[in-house]
Amino acid sequence: MSNQRENSSTSSEMQSSRRNFFKTAAVGAVAAASALSPVKMRADDPAIMEEQPWATALGDPVTKNRYGLPSPYEHNVLRRNAKLLQSGNWQASIAMCPLHELYGNITPNGLFFSRCHGGIPTIDPNKHRLMIHGLVEKPIVLTMDELKRYPSVSRIHFIECPANGGPEWRGPQFNSLQFARGMVSCAEWTGVYIKDIIKDLGLKPNAKWMLAEGGDSSHMGRTVPVDKVLDDAMIVWGQNGEALRPEQGYPIRLLLPGWEGNLCVKWLARLEFSDKPWYAKEETAKYTALLPSGKAIQHFYPLEVNSVITTPCPEKPWTDLKKGDMVEIQGLAWSGQGTIEGVDISFDGGDNWVEANLKGLVLPKAWTRFSYYYKYEGKPLLLQSRARDDAGHVQPTVNEEIAAVGVESVYHRNAITTWEVTEKGEVNNVQVR
Amino acid sequence: MSNQRENSSTSSEMQSSRRNFFKTAAVGAVAAASALSPVKMRADDPAIMEEQPWATALGDPVTKNRYGLPSPYEHNVLRRNAKLLQSGNWQASIAMCPLHELYGNITPNGLFFSRCHGGIPTIDPNKHRLMIHGLVEKPIVLTMDELKRYPSVSRIHFIECPANGGPEWRGPQFNSLQFARGMVSCAEWTGVYIKDIIKDLGLKPNAKWMLAEGGDSSHMGRTVPVDKVLDDAMIVWGQNGEALRPEQGYPIRLLLPGWEGNLCVKWLARLEFSDKPWYAKEETAKYTALLPSGKAIQHFYPLEVNSVITTPCPEKPWTDLKKGDMVEIQGLAWSGQGTIEGVDISFDGGDNWVEANLKGLVLPKAWTRFSYYYKYEGKPLLLQSRARDDAGHVQPTVNEEIAAVGVESVYHRNAITTWEVTEKGEVNNVQVR
Repeated sequence: MSNQRENSSTSSEMQSSRRNFFKTAAVGAVAAASALSPVKMRADDPAIMEEQPWATALGDPVTKNRYGLPSPYEHNVLRRNAKLLQSGNWQASIAMCPLHELYGNITPNGLFFSRCHGGIPTIDPNKHRLMIHGLVEKPIVLTMDELKRYPSVSRIHFIECPANGGPEWRGPQFNSLQFARGMVSCAEWTGVYIKDIIKDLGLKPNAKWMLAEGGDSSHMGRTVPVDKVLDDAMIVWGQNGEALRPEQGYPIRLLLPGWEGNLCVKWLARLEFSDKPWYAKEETAKYTALLPSGKAIQHFYPLEVNSVITTPCPEKPWTDLKKGDMVEIQGLAWSGQGTIEGVDISFDGGDNWVEANLKGLVLPKAWTRFSYYYKYEGKPLLLQSRARDDAGHVQPTVNEEIAAVGVESVYHRNAITTWEVTEKGEVNNVQVR
Repeated sequence: MSNQRENSSTSSEMQSSRRNFFKTAAVGAVAAASALSPVKMRADDPAIMEEQPWATALGDPVTKNRYGLPSPYEHNVLRRNAKLLQSGNWQASIAMCPLHELYGNITPNGLFFSRCHGGIPTIDPNKHRLMIHGLVEKPIVLTMDELKRYPSVSRIHFIECPANGGPEWRGPQFNSLQFARGMVSCAEWTGVYIKDIIKDLGLKPNAKWMLAEGGDSSHMGRTVPVDKVLDDAMIVWGQNGEALRPEQGYPIRLLLPGWEGNLCVKWLARLEFSDKPWYAKEETAKYTALLPSGKAIQHFYPLEVNSVITTPCPEKPWTDLKKGDMVEIQGLAWSGQGTIEGVDISFDGGDNWVEANLKGLVLPKAWTRFSYYYKYEGKPLLLQSRARDDAGHVQPTVNEEIAAVGVESVYHRNAITTWEVTEKGEVNNVQVR
């Protein structure tokens, strides 16, 4: 019934009676005894022996934050920006997600990555309209209240900028998970399937393409084949239970599950159906894949199977581990073409592989967290993850990707990432071809 | 593979080819034609005919909010507090969740309900320790880093205060969904199963109860049977992808899926195993169910099957609808004893029932959203929802609940809620016995 998976070690040892548990625990104690460094009661630890100030005085009243915020001790868990990824000014730039600080498969709204082309507009939802016209029987202009009257759906999906990892095509540029891979996040989205609106409006038989246009100053325009629109395209207004954040397109954005983030037009104001594609600026000058032949692939929408190890990583090294410590290697995998079927982990740069466990929810076109419980030995490693999806795709090596598309593209990079772990437990972003 | 359900009407009409789609659309147009009021292009609508300021000037740079916040137009979407539910001061009170403003099954962290007994402490995680002792072979004190080295799990579960709805046992006190039912929320939690730590420590065979104690000034103490601890009890540090919020127990809280929120001790500092329960203050003076006989049920942990309609509700009336408009009735259902199997909706105070659709993820001990697409007719209604779980439980009527436990308890109320919808579309909280 549930597909919230657990670690295989956990679920296989789950017992229905306490009697069985004690039997298992006695055996398990041998195998798992080294999970922690030698156990002690820390009689010399002031943190346990002395009363802390928060244990002896009233805290803040519940009336303090009617919209809550993270602990001040989490002040370093933030989106970050890099000048290298800026197109002229900070209005046309990227706020990258701290993948190394996340848990589970949901990205909290405050940390969801964001890419803007004309800055973040502050739109009054009462004055925002969605026009749907072109090759439809009944063109329409909807207020936000009218739009939300359609039957809604909620789906968990990742959104990724197709340039994620792109600056590193010829080699590492950032010794950082956040800067090298932080243009992807995952949330529960609520909105309406466009096919359910189309039932009302009636699509003309020669409608083959849909233009989506944003209402912000960049007026982002992208063209989508009607087949995708009638499959799973949504207009979304909810993100992890609340209204879309301004930088995600408040009050509404297009969501094309598994396809380029740039196609998921934010601040959506207009959908126009036509028999021809539009060749808008952002699908000709940019968001195409330049091949070694000098030609470019233009209609290049779904994102390929991908993954990255999030612990350890340059920001979360193993420098505090001692030889023999047990530690969990974790990471995230996703595919725009289906559901993650498995993830392999290599410790030697791709010569040998072991299979990781998939954790929590495993859903199509959504983040899937993987895990491998590992005994740290203080040896140098070349740590890699390689994801597979149920459409039969496997992440390529760097050389395989270069052989297929050359080195001129900055889009759709999904080659295997390598973390070098040094003898001291430091972690560096390196390239293994 | 996926159990992200769609509305049954949508999934049954999902088509693999465009040819089929057009056929369906032609038929569907008849059935769905009245989804909206008469369609027009609104040539007289200044919101579409005039350029808006956000379309003609750059917005905010992506560097503005490195931890993002909701749109200023959502300023009214907040947790709220009621003096009636306050025990002396705002440090011992409740911040209620705006259920009427939520989408999907995830509650954003900023809006997750919170109940405190000694205020919200600001705990330094570097100085916080978790002691596990009593009837274990190897007592231990863990730092937060050591705790997080165990293999983690992520699970979506609701947490509900057992007093949710309790003030209304003898009749409505609040003409409001938020105040009448807002002590429940649902999130993706990340942490470790206590059974996985116990494998390391070794539980003594006579251990039958576990005390959980908070490190804040209230030092909340609650006793849990070991069977639940070895089933699915977790120590959690992650909430919807980021660190627990301070008001949810930062840096760690106990999570007993489906059991009283008060048992899920926040700011968790100590777990002690024993052969006897503790009879702590908050499980004798409070959090017991007083019966008509004058005796009280004390060990009363799992929350019963429950549901509430969230649109319409007193805060989201139907006053803007016209006769003939199609509109989606939505609500939330949950059970601490299993997975929601179905929800029925009544328009006449419980005489007749129709079955709602379950939407999105349907997971055990988690919120399940239900929906019924309805043609508004401007007639007075007595609107009810009645949830069923896969353990065979059904929500009782008010009279059935009073017959079972009397009217003296304020805990574990799960009788059917009634919204009166007037001819004008106003919605009132009323009691139908």
